[in-house]
Amino acid sequence: MLTIDEKFARLGTDHAPGQEVRQTADDSNFRGEVLPGTPVDFSHGDVNDDAFAPTPGAFEEFVAGVHRGGSQAYTEYRGGGGLREMVAERLTAFTGHPVSGADELIITPGTQGALFLALGALVTTGDRVAIVRPDYFANRKLVEFLGGVVVPVRMDHLSYTDRAGLDLGQLEDAFKSGVRTFLFSNPNNPAGVIHSPDEIARIAALASQYGATVIVDQLYSRLLYSGNSYTHLRASSIDAAQVVTIMGPSKTESLSGYRLGVAFGASHLVDRMEKLQAIVSLRAPGYSQAVLRTWFAEPAGWMQDRIVKHEALRNELLAVFGAVPGLRVRTPQAGSYLFPQLPALDIPLHDFVRALRVQAGVTVTPGTEFSPDATNSVRLNFSQNHRAAVEAAGRIGEMIARYRR
Amino acid sequence: MLTIDEKFARLGTDHAPGQEVRQTADDSNFRGEVLPGTPVDFSHGDVNDDAFAPTPGAFEEFVAGVHRGGSQAYTEYRGGGGLREMVAERLTAFTGHPVSGADELIITPGTQGALFLALGALVTTGDRVAIVRPDYFANRKLVEFLGGVVVPVRMDHLSYTDRAGLDLGQLEDAFKSGVRTFLFSNPNNPAGVIHSPDEIARIAALASQYGATVIVDQLYSRLLYSGNSYTHLRASSIDAAQVVTIMGPSKTESLSGYRLGVAFGASHLVDRMEKLQAIVSLRAPGYSQAVLRTWFAEPAGWMQDRIVKHEALRNELLAVFGAVPGLRVRTPQAGSYLFPQLPALDIPLHDFVRALRVQAGVTVTPGTEFSPDATNSVRLNFSQNHRAAVEAAGRIGEMIARYRR
Repeated sequence: MLTIDEKFARLGTDHAPGQEVRQTADDSNFRGEVLPGTPVDFSHGDVNDDAFAPTPGAFEEFVAGVHRGGSQAYTEYRGGGGLREMVAERLTAFTGHPVSGADELIITPGTQGALFLALGALVTTGDRVAIVRPDYFANRKLVEFLGGVVVPVRMDHLSYTDRAGLDLGQLEDAFKSGVRTFLFSNPNNPAGVIHSPDEIARIAALASQYGATVIVDQLYSRLLYSGNSYTHLRASSIDAAQVVTIMGPSKTESLSGYRLGVAFGASHLVDRMEKLQAIVSLRAPGYSQAVLRTWFAEPAGWMQDRIVKHEALRNELLAVFGAVPGLRVRTPQAGSYLFPQLPALDIPLHDFVRALRVQAGVTVTPGTEFSPDATNSVRLNFSQNHRAAVEAAGRIGEMIARYRR
Repeated sequence: MLTIDEKFARLGTDHAPGQEVRQTADDSNFRGEVLPGTPVDFSHGDVNDDAFAPTPGAFEEFVAGVHRGGSQAYTEYRGGGGLREMVAERLTAFTGHPVSGADELIITPGTQGALFLALGALVTTGDRVAIVRPDYFANRKLVEFLGGVVVPVRMDHLSYTDRAGLDLGQLEDAFKSGVRTFLFSNPNNPAGVIHSPDEIARIAALASQYGATVIVDQLYSRLLYSGNSYTHLRASSIDAAQVVTIMGPSKTESLSGYRLGVAFGASHLVDRMEKLQAIVSLRAPGYSQAVLRTWFAEPAGWMQDRIVKHEALRNELLAVFGAVPGLRVRTPQAGSYLFPQLPALDIPLHDFVRALRVQAGVTVTPGTEFSPDATNSVRLNFSQNHRAAVEAAGRIGEMIARYRR
């Protein structure tokens, strides 16, 4: 059992996205001059008007919520009742499987909140939890904070184009060894790859066979690029009580500033999540909840336009990176992340990431946040101003040339 | 060690404030007719215009935050840097002891978020934590969720007028037995009483002697009634590294709908709290953070006017309750809570609370949320429309007459 000191020693955030400002380091080994250009922070999406602005009407719904006063400020801990019904209906249509607003859905402060509550409802001291490598950086930290033990499952996305590349044998071995909780993101964050219908069917079959609960983080499942299809685990042949799905109006809709997420599925777990939310944050911000009214109800063509713009930017960035010798990257199928594997450098990854920020005005997140094995990769959230992002990718190429082995 | 099922069995929220809508019960034993009158929900304050409206300018600061875009949506996990400096300066003035915005303050989603993070930074499996009875209902649940063990410390507020009535001998016994964390609210929630200078000095001395860390929830310390003074633990003779203070622009300022809180003090604990926030909710809602600019910067006379109005309502409610035979209540010194102890009833407290809601349109929180011993008490948040609250208190009196033993 970990002491509180040991617990926090593992919860490092120094290299987490957005925390770069807290770093202090010695820059005396930098090579070459500063590269000019518009600074780009790829650690998160840019929500300003010259990049990807929030959904039309979102702000107006917030204002209407403030005017409703107490009924909007103080909802049930799981979120306003009428609003849950509205959102549940839309998620039923989106995922192709029924969601009850009364019992199977909770509104949370961001999808981060939903993830914490879902794991908190399932994991306590000593529990073993299967976590994908690479996957969202908080997943392993959540398990460790809750006193659980991470059982890694490899995903070799660079070796495939028709599937995510999850090692299903390793997943089965984990279940065989007693693991009863599996958490994964689909599309994968950081790699932007989608689990194929076969992979989803196999995950469902294994979870059913071993009585495991699956938490699937589908945050980016709406931002789907042309030629791709998406399979919802909850609509596959698996017991509804064994799946919790997490989504939210966040990066795709550029609504992160309102801190909204939802978790839906297994009602006994939603009940637990509400109990936990009551002591962690009480509820999702009351007035912000009203913004959910715009979710899945965007103006006609708005989401399609957003996808087309992201896809065009994705393609141009892939072209830039394709010209860098030794760099490997898989074409993202959904979402706004790129996860290139860099050629071998002769400085450590964290130093290179720092040099990128200081010398080239480019902020990226080191791959080690997502997998201890991703020591040559960096993650970019390319939901940015198009021209600035393409120029910044060019600077990344120049910096690789400067520091390559 | 608790299993996950046992852990959640203890985390009940059925009778928690605001959750009444989820109750189902048999009402066939109710006596008498429904009492007419404007329904009042005393489980939380009313933020509508005919009760206590939010701070002037708060909404405008939120809007300005939305217009700032990405820089406001994505702050450091501990909150925006410039804003932290601004708030730290004001809290230095308010508490009479320096706060560093850079290292000693974190902005959280509500004071509930701050409480969770502070305890999460200190308590892990098996740790024993001193908790006051009665005190805020989430305190004991937080300890239990984190795997800790609650060590109760009695507070006999009804027996004193010049001090809160904390049993300092019990607190010392707890420290002697190995407890190294003490959490309490001051003013006390639910009783509205203030710990005297002597009580605070003694808490500081005991914590120093035994090397314990104290978390003090000062949420209501601004709403101080005439004739009372307030002693800040952090300004007493105790090492800064042993105190975390929690506040927020919430009920007093009617800003709960924005979900904002702050914790300040021991920098090594603020560091941990930020690491934990990174996996629990990432950050306080970005745009909401901007609302903190109005905190401790309200228009001249605004807070005084708010206090005068609450005090007048407090006095009138005390007069109504004073006329109920057998009811005992202490005059709150700060905040907006009343915690009357009812005369003996011949139905269980939870049934009476339900009858109050269904038959009299009055929602209160049962005392058992705050202490297992408070089986005859109810808590009222009287930050309400004045006339409706006084009439509702009258109906409580009628209902007591109907159900008394």
